[in-house]
Amino acid sequence: MGLIVAIDRPLEEGLVERLCGVASGVKVGLPAVLRAGVEWARRAASSCRGLKVLDFKLADVAHVMEAIVEPFLGYYDAFIAHSFLGGPGALTELSRILEREGARLVLVASMSHPGSLEVYDKVSGLIEAVIDEVDPWGLVAPATRPRVIGRLRRRYPGKAILAPGVGAQGARPGTAVCAGADYEIVGRAIVDSPDPVKAALEIASEVEVARRGCGAEAG
Amino acid sequence: MGLIVAIDRPLEEGLVERLCGVASGVKVGLPAVLRAGVEWARRAASSCRGLKVLDFKLADVAHVMEAIVEPFLGYYDAFIAHSFLGGPGALTELSRILEREGARLVLVASMSHPGSLEVYDKVSGLIEAVIDEVDPWGLVAPATRPRVIGRLRRRYPGKAILAPGVGAQGARPGTAVCAGADYEIVGRAIVDSPDPVKAALEIASEVEVARRGCGAEAG
Repeated sequence: MGLIVAIDRPLEEGLVERLCGVASGVKVGLPAVLRAGVEWARRAASSCRGLKVLDFKLADVAHVMEAIVEPFLGYYDAFIAHSFLGGPGALTELSRILEREGARLVLVASMSHPGSLEVYDKVSGLIEAVIDEVDPWGLVAPATRPRVIGRLRRRYPGKAILAPGVGAQGARPGTAVCAGADYEIVGRAIVDSPDPVKAALEIASEVEVARRGCGAEAG
Repeated sequence: MGLIVAIDRPLEEGLVERLCGVASGVKVGLPAVLRAGVEWARRAASSCRGLKVLDFKLADVAHVMEAIVEPFLGYYDAFIAHSFLGGPGALTELSRILEREGARLVLVASMSHPGSLEVYDKVSGLIEAVIDEVDPWGLVAPATRPRVIGRLRRRYPGKAILAPGVGAQGARPGTAVCAGADYEIVGRAIVDSPDPVKAALEIASEVEVARRGCGAEAG
């Protein structure tokens, strides 16, 4: 429950550790790993006491996805892949590999950009059939569309919902958690700020205040 | 026209150069780049006289995809992304960035694994609307489903069609080219063979023989 810091460019390792001290975890993206390397990504994960999510938006056939995640198994807790891949030959095998290694699968159910309305959000029935089939630990749904989060929360009460799109992409901290998300993902508003740890603390507190507020409204 | 060698694990650089001497080009995947690094991927591209395709199956919002391709601009000729993303906030911006840098966009239109039938191939009308909107240079369609290639060839006479799924994934060399593809993509059957250059030569020749054969049938 709370804030996950999205890291899409290399940060000093001490900073990752300190961000994990004030947030619930980190989500490390491919742009950061390409620039800083696999070893950096492993050390960053090892320094973090929270939830470590590797976000490469996996979207390939099974044997390629297996080769992509292999160097990060044992370092990251959860791996994000696209639900539109379907099960056999892709997510079914990925899910098995992750389960065997004690890692969690998180499937993208919808995205935060306007283009998501052109395909992803038009075929939510098919996407949910894949989610039912593959049964991931968590889902990614956009903070910019709280109704989508609300629908997924009602449909999947037991799954973690991770919501990107907070901050630079437009959603206000707290909106997604109030709509039913477990984690709000914030990147640039934290890592591009002059004092990232202070920014993370402030946003984590905004998320928490909003959560209590919407809890009160709901009660 | 011809054979593209898929490289999904690090190869000695001399080998990439020699494979490019007998094939039409190479497609370098994320598993190889994670293990060998960005500098290796740049040097491998620089050593290749053919078409250089970077295949990360891009599937994120625009600013993340821009950060992913940036280190490879000027080294690779074409970049593969998922049509599933839609235009605004994703492929529209990616297309503009690539065009500005003289690089080509290739969109996945369908995939080679069975799971592709669960979503991708059920929504081909929506996928084609995105292709119409974004207007990429090329398309990826599975050699394992020649009918899909034929349909895309008729619908998009001017676009390059790249067909993975030849060899280890089950399609016979030549099938995709006969169905209308411009390039057949072969990975493991070449790079895992004891003599990759010889294997590439043989498969390139099979593709060429099939192409002439299907041309004769058509005539």
